[in-house]
Formats: sequence, structure tokens, C-alpha cells
Amino acid sequence: MTAPIANPAAAAPSYARASFRNGYCAPTAGWSNGFAQANLIAVPRDWAYDVLLFCQRNPKPCPVLDVTDPGVSSTSLADECDLRTDLPRYRVWRDGVLVEEPINARDYWRDDLVCFLIGCSFTFEDALSEAGVPLRHVEAQRNVPMYVTSRPCRSAGRLHGQMVVSMRPIPPGLITTAVTVTSAMPAVHGAPVHIDDPGSLGIHDLQAPDFGDPPQFGPNDLPVFWACGVTLQAVVIASKPPYAITHAPGHMLITDIRDRQYRTAR
Amino acid sequence: MTAPIANPAAAAPSYARASFRNGYCAPTAGWSNGFAQANLIAVPRDWAYDVLLFCQRNPKPCPVLDVTDPGVSSTSLADECDLRTDLPRYRVWRDGVLVEEPINARDYWRDDLVCFLIGCSFTFEDALSEAGVPLRHVEAQRNVPMYVTSRPCRSAGRLHGQMVVSMRPIPPGLITTAVTVTSAMPAVHGAPVHIDDPGSLGIHDLQAPDFGDPPQFGPNDLPVFWACGVTLQAVVIASKPPYAITHAPGHMLITDIRDRQYRTAR
Repeated sequence: MTAPIANPAAAAPSYARASFRNGYCAPTAGWSNGFAQANLIAVPRDWAYDVLLFCQRNPKPCPVLDVTDPGVSSTSLADECDLRTDLPRYRVWRDGVLVEEPINARDYWRDDLVCFLIGCSFTFEDALSEAGVPLRHVEAQRNVPMYVTSRPCRSAGRLHGQMVVSMRPIPPGLITTAVTVTSAMPAVHGAPVHIDDPGSLGIHDLQAPDFGDPPQFGPNDLPVFWACGVTLQAVVIASKPPYAITHAPGHMLITDIRDRQYRTAR
Repeated sequence: MTAPIANPAAAAPSYARASFRNGYCAPTAGWSNGFAQANLIAVPRDWAYDVLLFCQRNPKPCPVLDVTDPGVSSTSLADECDLRTDLPRYRVWRDGVLVEEPINARDYWRDDLVCFLIGCSFTFEDALSEAGVPLRHVEAQRNVPMYVTSRPCRSAGRLHGQMVVSMRPIPPGLITTAVTVTSAMPAVHGAPVHIDDPGSLGIHDLQAPDFGDPPQFGPNDLPVFWACGVTLQAVVIASKPPYAITHAPGHMLITDIRDRQYRTAR
């Protein structure tokens, strides 16, 4: 099945996953409104401690939602899910080099892989939208732009690298709202790490993102940056583990967990 | 130095740690007001992934504040701290059996130990007190009572066990306040896991705690239960790792981190 889906915002998570399993491929921003999405990174068992410790030390870009046992490709976040097939696109890494971008990772799976599911900022987009904050990339039906910053993460064992951020252009009058709404959702990156002044993050050209699509700005929009789970892909590139499988940026796992479960009590 | 300290509530964390290093021993509830306290568990490197994964899967009893590299006995939570000496009392475990309770763990240290520092509910006691909630165990200069419940934790690798809770008797009119104040501090166990009805937690006699001292109740107080970092000691007993060093219950690391750092933005 490769036909486009008429109304991805209304797609049930199980339907979205089945579509991807059957070969449909698209970025998942704006899909299955009201449900959490997640980043994936799978590494060999003997690298799992380094990844989990890296996440513990860098909770803003890498909030852990679930960790599988070695060789297990299901997750408590999604019913009848196969992590090898149910995301729209994958990346396969050898020694820190991207070697494949398949839409199905079954042929690349190994029995010693441990999967980490990491919170994704797409999860708070529905809350932003409800609060009246426009989502320029969803309006334009594009992937969100992501940038490798100059900010180093805390290292963990053999893993090191710089933080990746996602960016959303926001009208100045709504930035307070955007901060307030997202600060209540720390498990999916929480409040922005930076507002405006991309140069101080080491970002020199907003129109040349490292991942995703170039942004479209409204007339007075300022760029607002959130920590991003793709940080772990920058870490793979920098740290060169022998093997890893990740989602392709913006092509997330759509879970069965309601986004409001990640809103902290107030 | 073994003389009692005149005003432990006002002791600077570095002074408290130096006192313990020099041989003074006391439970740390009510010490160094305004500063976070932490549970300690040190395990051999090849058990570290299981511990970290257990904490990830059980964040309510086991919120991770810091993890050391193997053989390192300092922590980013406390300046010039030596985790082998700076807590008032330790427990040494072999195959899940408590074999020693020394006031100094130097003779028991190993170069392959990884230390986990876990949030402690003593950290929110100052906030409770400021909000007008009485702390019966501090008033009585006792250790807080802790109980092994019948609630299983999520297992992780070789580790399994039941949740331990700390209990504070609270006047009914202040329970809402206690829930509100502590729910804002998820890194130090957050909101209570249970209010009243100890039987449904598998606790049959509040006057016979598994750790700490028996409680003293005010006239109308109800028992309020919070998840407790001593859970990891129940896990050691149940899961029998070959070696572990922990703090003695209630005898915590006093950190240099202000408790308000663990209050979430509201």
C-alpha cells in the first residue's frame, strides 16, 4: 500500500503503523493527533549501557520512554507493534557511517539489538496547536527542520556528540505560550533550549538544516529551538559504534500513548 | 569527631559530609535544610546496566540524579565528596545478604564499582515544612519509617523486587498540600503513591517498619506513603547480585544541590 492517506491527522496509531508496515513512507509530523511519537535507536547489547547512561546524563534531548530487552522488537508503547517494520523509514549505521535508508529494517535486524524509544517533540505539537500556536511545517506539509548545534552533550562511556535541535518559527506574541505549554511536557523535550539568535547555537543558515526540510517563516516569526532526539544520530556519527539502526529523522514511531500522559500535573 | 552536632538543620552540606567522614553517625532527616539528599547504591560494572534500566523502568522509587564512571567515588552533586566515606553509614551486601554496616566503606570499595545516586524524599521535607505540613519523625528526632510493600516493580535484566515506601503521618486537612508540594518534585519521588489503608500495600503493622524507626502519629493523622529509594535494597535482597554497597536506610548523602532545583517549573 503506497497511496497517500487522506487525513493523517485523524489516522489511528495502529492504522498509521500498518500503513508504514505495508510500505507507505512519509514524515509523521501532524499524524495521529493526540498520540505520542518516539525516536528509535537500536544498538548491540554491549553498547546499551552507554546509550542508557548517555540518555540519563542528557535528559533534555534524550528522554527515555521505553527500552526493550535484547532481541525484542515489540514495545509497551504500542500494541502489536514490530519496531523492525512499523516506522516509515529507517537508517542503518556501520561504524558511524549511514549505509542504508530502508523503509523496512527487517533485513538489518540482529538478535543482540536493544531498542531505545526516546520522546519526540511532535508529541507536544497538538498541545501547541490547541493553544493557538501555528505549526509552520505542518501547514506546509513539510518535515520539521533540525540542526546540529555547537553545544556538547555530557559524554557517557564511549558516546559523545553535540546536541541536535528542532526549530519552529513562532510569532513573538505566542512564544510565552509555546514555552509554557512545552515546559509541562518534559518527557518529550520540554521547554525550548533557545529562542532566536541561532548563531549562538552554532547555526549559521536556518535554510540549510542538517535534517528535515528548510523552514517557512511567517512575517514576524522568531526561530524557537527545542532539544531533539536526533541528537543520538549525531552521537552515532561522532562516536562510531560498530552498528546501529535508527528511525530516519522526522519518520517516527507513532505510539498508542495519549500525548496528555506526558503532560505533568499542574 | 563523634560529638552530636548542635543544629543539624543549619549544617552546611560540606560540614555535614566532613562530620560523617570523621566518624559521626546519625540519620540525616532534618539535616542541612534546603539541600537535596540522595540514596546510594554501588554495584560491579557488569551489573550497572541492570540497575540503570531498573531505575528507568521504575522512576517513581528510583529517580536517578547521578551515575559515576567505574571506580570513581566522586559525584557532580557534591563538591570534594568521597562517596566511600561521606555518608553516615553504609551497608555491604554479598549475594543479597547484608554482611556489614560500616560507618566508612573504604575497606569495602572495589575499582569496578559504579555508583548510582537516587533521589530521596528528605529533599522535599523542607518544602513540606515551609507549607505548614508537620514532620512527625523530625519532631521526634527519629528516622522515617519505611516498609516493603506487596507492589512488584517492573523487572530489568536480573533485577526484580517490590517497592519500598516511606511513610509520614499527616493531618487530613494538610494532605492536599502535601500532595501538591511533592508532586512538583518528581526527581525526589514526587506525589505520594498511596494515602491511608496500609493493608492494600501489604503493610500490616505500621509500628513495625522494615527500615527506620516506628512512627509517632498526631491525633487525627493519616499515613501517607511515598515511593522510596530503599527499593533498590529490597531489590538487592530479592535479586542477589554478587556484591553491592548501599547507604544505610535514612543515612543519606547530603548534596550541594539546592532542593528547589528539583522543583519543576509551574
